[in-house]
This record gives sequence, structure tokens and C-alpha cells, in this order.
Amino acid sequence: MLQSKLFTKTRREAPKDEVSQNAKLLIRAGFIHKELAGVYSYLPLGLRVLNKINKIIREEMNTIGGQEVSLTSLQNPELWKKTDRYDLDVAFNTELKNGGDLQLAWSHEEPMTNMMRDHISSYRDLPIMAYQFQTKFRNEERAKSGIMRGREFLMKDMYSFHSSQADLDVFYERATEAYLNIFRRVGLGDLTYVTFASGGAFSKYSHEFQTLSEAGEDMIYVSKSKKMAVNKEVYTVEVLKELDISKDELVEAKGVEVGNIFKLGTQYSVPLGLEYTDESGDKKPVIMGCYGIGLGRLMGTVVETSADEKGMVWPKEIAPFDIHLLAIGYKDDSVKQAVDSLTKKFEEKGLEVLVDDRDTSAGEKFADADLFGIPTRLVISPKTIEEEVIEMKDRKTGEVKKLSEIDLLAILS
Amino acid sequence: MLQSKLFTKTRREAPKDEVSQNAKLLIRAGFIHKELAGVYSYLPLGLRVLNKINKIIREEMNTIGGQEVSLTSLQNPELWKKTDRYDLDVAFNTELKNGGDLQLAWSHEEPMTNMMRDHISSYRDLPIMAYQFQTKFRNEERAKSGIMRGREFLMKDMYSFHSSQADLDVFYERATEAYLNIFRRVGLGDLTYVTFASGGAFSKYSHEFQTLSEAGEDMIYVSKSKKMAVNKEVYTVEVLKELDISKDELVEAKGVEVGNIFKLGTQYSVPLGLEYTDESGDKKPVIMGCYGIGLGRLMGTVVETSADEKGMVWPKEIAPFDIHLLAIGYKDDSVKQAVDSLTKKFEEKGLEVLVDDRDTSAGEKFADADLFGIPTRLVISPKTIEEEVIEMKDRKTGEVKKLSEIDLLAILS
Repeated sequence: MLQSKLFTKTRREAPKDEVSQNAKLLIRAGFIHKELAGVYSYLPLGLRVLNKINKIIREEMNTIGGQEVSLTSLQNPELWKKTDRYDLDVAFNTELKNGGDLQLAWSHEEPMTNMMRDHISSYRDLPIMAYQFQTKFRNEERAKSGIMRGREFLMKDMYSFHSSQADLDVFYERATEAYLNIFRRVGLGDLTYVTFASGGAFSKYSHEFQTLSEAGEDMIYVSKSKKMAVNKEVYTVEVLKELDISKDELVEAKGVEVGNIFKLGTQYSVPLGLEYTDESGDKKPVIMGCYGIGLGRLMGTVVETSADEKGMVWPKEIAPFDIHLLAIGYKDDSVKQAVDSLTKKFEEKGLEVLVDDRDTSAGEKFADADLFGIPTRLVISPKTIEEEVIEMKDRKTGEVKKLSEIDLLAILS
Repeated sequence: MLQSKLFTKTRREAPKDEVSQNAKLLIRAGFIHKELAGVYSYLPLGLRVLNKINKIIREEMNTIGGQEVSLTSLQNPELWKKTDRYDLDVAFNTELKNGGDLQLAWSHEEPMTNMMRDHISSYRDLPIMAYQFQTKFRNEERAKSGIMRGREFLMKDMYSFHSSQADLDVFYERATEAYLNIFRRVGLGDLTYVTFASGGAFSKYSHEFQTLSEAGEDMIYVSKSKKMAVNKEVYTVEVLKELDISKDELVEAKGVEVGNIFKLGTQYSVPLGLEYTDESGDKKPVIMGCYGIGLGRLMGTVVETSADEKGMVWPKEIAPFDIHLLAIGYKDDSVKQAVDSLTKKFEEKGLEVLVDDRDTSAGEKFADADLFGIPTRLVISPKTIEEEVIEMKDRKTGEVKKLSEIDLLAILS
């Protein structure tokens, strides 16, 4: 794609009202636009990142048997009254013109459980895993964390339905693995810990996936050697004993909750009447689990944990493009020819290239490339053409090399 | 995909409260789920259709230079007050916990225009075409048309930004062509007419794309020979003269408005202050157009115009699967082997196959296949294996053939 065709512009200064590093950088780079506090639109480059995260999550959910659906944001209060979750502070309320209250979905346990009543009758129908990518609306009191805590944000939420606790337990482990794959693939593997957090009526603990970051709002105790952590909210001597962790191996750190999985048991199936008939013909409530990831929070966490003083640094798998090719002097026929020809070769290999063909200074191009954070930056100029090389810079390490086209094409694939 | 793994179940009877044909069939087939009147969730098969429509529209929008974004549903009232569109009857209103009214987006002209103020300054930045797939919330008084008129629905809306009326006019024609491509590709080409409808302050007419259907809510006058139509709302002798249509060639018909394009001129750019600097250094308001398609409405219209008494009939390009392969007696090793082997061959050709491997009667499989409306139905049973044939039925024409595997693989690709 030619950068001259991209409608977004970068800016040198972040808006004064933004506190968070992720929003500052994403707005400066033209990846997102602020509509309201905690409410951000995604512009072309930001949407490309979000869609790549989406694709990774979808692949992992399909691998563990998930079936994709898309539920609604407008919600019938009657369902939420049955579970005593109507009119909570977190909800946005609205009403129909011709009378009747509605609630915007801040989560989807109730409609998902209710919908399944049409599709589950026998133990033979189970297990079922259904997931969606859908907007959540949360009436947060404060929203100062950029896209990491929004009043409107995209979440992937999966719900699993089982005929036994044992079956839930087995799937719960598979979901944990899938989640770890996701965090690894988006580049947060090294920083992310399975973290014991408070459970509910049906399980002692839930599991959070906490990514170490100064931008985190949670305090956790991390065992790097055991690759696990304990949320401060459940941190007691008894818990450590139970988990077989010594206090000495724990380090206190700030974490961002990038995912959360929960054994719901029959918390929703009982009040909403989701039952199945077992082998003996008896009716029993369905046993459930739920599994959430906020996509904006994940994207914001990647920005927070990888950015440097010059801008963002995207991991390869979720970068908006694979290669940022800066054409210094694109009006020069030899530069244009070299750039277009190389771009074509990359695209034939399936690599996505953003070509900075703009009629602007080299300094501005370098600064914007650092800000965008595409993993590989290439430069073609009259000078590199004369030298028969292409300059390659690794955005993460800063390492610069001059390579022949043949060597470059061999390296990048 | 194995149908036994699909969590949705079909039902013989439509819910009593559904009036529309599209909702009745889509609910019976387990493609959608009703949350509230005019508020429908998409289940796996329905979501597959929706995503295929989405893909077609995205391709056509990218072809005419569109850049994809994703704006928000929560809206700052201040923007809408500037255009005198705040607190209209159509809007759902809500409020922040810590005070302040919000509106749910029932359209996106205001935020799109306002956002572009950060990215447009010079005539050199224009034209820009930006589009999104985003939920609209509309507080409809009545919602009895299934997914054809929802209170919450997915829309593709594109907005174009120009430095001259002439440039808008040229793009408007390109957008018209892209729209006609979309309707052709989703199978509505023959039934869909460019229709003159009422314009605004900046153009005499807007253009609707009306699909002939008894389910339509609009009355239009159609000239089949000229492949155009006039909406009753603008139908006068003067209009006919202007459009060079004789009254005799017009037929009155009901139409569904499946798309709408509109020359907005400076209707939004002036109140919202979206300006550019022209070649002479003068500031001028940006000239705009907008282009909308409701995805649910399009999907519902396809159901309404193609279904027969047995169920739905999907056009190839938006069918949930390409092939519905009914395995009669999948427990039989020879049937399983033949079905699995054929499925693999289709999938290697890039065809999507739904295999009905369920342990249920042949009659139920046939009835569900007719209801689902996948274009090609194949049957493999002990009998067809003995005869060394596969039975193929065209869902649309009802034509049944018995073919060898070699002939079948040659036909389906």
C-alpha cells in the first residue's frame, strides 16, 4: 500500500487530555481516534492490528472446537433479573420508544445461556463451545487507560457447556493452553503469567492471564521459575501452601489482566433454566465455563510493554504491515522503479508492504516509521541505488544493515 | 464440517410471534436467534452467510479506493447538536454513570466528518473514501420485518470526501457500479433497480437500490427495459419527463431498499467545520457523499426473494456452505469412508462441505437440507455405493442426477 493514499496523518504531540502511553502513541500515529473518554474508533492502521489479533484468537478458538456466533448489544432486562445482574452500576441503560427498559450488554452470560435452551436437550448435545467477537459497553467511572479500559470495547468471549464437572475441567485446561498460545503469538508470551484469582460459588479460584507492565492496574505476586502468579486479592499463606509456592520465590509486580477464564458451574444455567437430560433420563443443569479476552486491552498492552522513546514496536504477527519501505525521492524514476519492483517481489511472497512514497523529508519519514513500529524498515534512495544495496533496520533492536536485494529477499520471508 | 458437531438444532415450527418469512425460516433453520423484537443474534450458519456478504462488500469497497475504519456506537451529543440531529426519535439515549448524556449511533455522518478534521487540511489530501461495518441502533416504532428492519443491525457505511462537486459526481458513479456488483454477486442482480428517490438540499435526487419483493415496504414504479425505477415519493409527471421515461413502460411494484447513496454536499462539513485549503490558499468546506448497505436487510431480502415452500435457497456466493453432503448411514464403514474421502477431495478444491453425519432418519436429513438451502445437495448411502454413483440435487431447480465420482468432481469446482 502506498502511504500517500493512507488518509490518516501523524502528529508530533499527543492530545493533552491523554494520560496513557498507549493512547498517546496510537493517536499520534493515527491508529485510533478518541470519540469520548474511554471510547476510541479504529482507523485503518489500528484496525489492521486489531484484525490480526482477531484472526489469531479465532484460529485458537476454532482449534479447541469453538463455534462462532454474534449476539446482540440490546438486552432484555428479564434475563438479567433472573440472575440478579440487572441494573448494576456497570450497565448502560436505555429504553424503547414505545416503552420498556433495555440494557446494553456489558457481558453475555445471560443471553448465551438463554439462547442455548433452544439447542441443548440431551447429554448427547454436549459439550458445546460457542464464542463471539462482540462489543461490550461498560459504564466505567474512570477511563484513563486508553484502549486498555474502555467504556465501549471489543471482546472475544467464549462460553462452554458440559454435562459433567470432569468434562469442564478437561476443556478448561485446553482453553488455558489456547490462551497461552494467543499471548505468545501476539508477542506477550514472556511477560504473561497464569495467575490465581478469586473464584465464585463453584470454584475456589478463577484464572487470570496477567502481563507484567507498569501500566497494570492489578498487583500480583510472580514466581518466574514456576511461570505462575497469585493476585493480591487471594494472596495468603494458606494459598501459597496449597499452590506449593514459597514466599521467597515471589516478586511483587504490576500486571494487566489480558484474559480471564472462569468455571461458572451452574451459576447461570440454574436461574435461566438451561438443562439437559442425562443417560438415565434425569434433568440436570448444564455446567458452564467462560473465557474472555479484550482485544483493545491486548493491543494496548502490547504497545505499553514494547514501545520505546521513538514510538511503537509491533511483534511480527500483529504488525499493521510486515515491511515499511521508505522511498527517499520517489519522484526519481530509478527510485520509483526499484521500490515498485521490490514491493511486487515481497507481495508475491505474501508479505505486506507499506511504501512511504510521500513527497516529504527523509527525516519525517524516519520519524513516522519509528512511530508506526512496523518490524522491518527498508530504505531505498538514489544513494542506496548507486551502492546497489538496500538499507534494512530492525525496529526492535535498532540494528541497521546494508544488503543486496538477493540477500534481503532471502532474509525476509 | 460435520453437522453432528454443529450446536444448532432445526425446528419444524416457527415461533408464533414472527410475522416475516425471513425470520421464520432463519429461526427454524437455526441461523439466527431472536433476542427482542427487531434484535437478532447470528448463530454459526447465519454468521457464515453474513460474513460472506461482508467479504463481497469489502472487496467492492476496496476496489473503489475505500479505506476501512471502525467507529464507535457511543456518541458525544455535542457533535449531533451541531447538525440539529440530536435527540431525534430514532435514537436510543443513555447516560454516563458520572453524569452526561450519550446517544447510540443510529448513523455515523457526524463522527466520520468530525474525525476527518484531524486528517484533511489541503486539497492534496482529497479525495478520501472511508468505510466501516458497524452496528446501528435505531429506535424503530415497529419491528416486524425480521432481520430486514432491526433495532440493532450491521451496516456498511462509506463516506467520501472531495474538493469539488465534479470529483464527487465521478466517484458517485463508481460507487453506483460497485453497488450493482454487490447486488449481482449476492444473487439479487435481476431483481434490483437503481431507483430515484428524494434528495436533500444539495442534490435533487438520492439513489436507492430497490429489490422487487412482496416483503418490500416501499412502492416504486419500475421500467424493466431501462433497468431503473422511481420511488413513489418523487413520482410526478415532471420527474418522468426529466428522466425521459414514459408512464406506459412503468409497472408499480413493492421494493426493499437494499442500499442507498446520497450526495451530501456540505450538509455536514459546514456545521462541523471540516474544511480544506484549495490551490489558491482559500479555505472551503469539504464536499461529501455517503453510501449505505444494511447487511441483515440484504440477507433477509435474499431469503424473501428466493425461498420456496420447503425452505431457503442460497445463491452460491453467500451460501453457508457450497455442498451439503448427506451421509445416509454414516455408521456404516463403507458410507463413512466414501463420505470422508469425497469431502477431502472437495476441500482440497477449496469447496466448503457440510456433512450430515447425524444418526437420524433420511427424511429428517432431506427436510433439513431443503430448509438450509445450500446450493448443491449430495447423497451417499449404501445403495448409491452399490450403484457406484452419487446423487446430486440442485436446491434451486430441484433437478436430481446420479453421477460417478469423476463426473461429479468435474462438475463441482
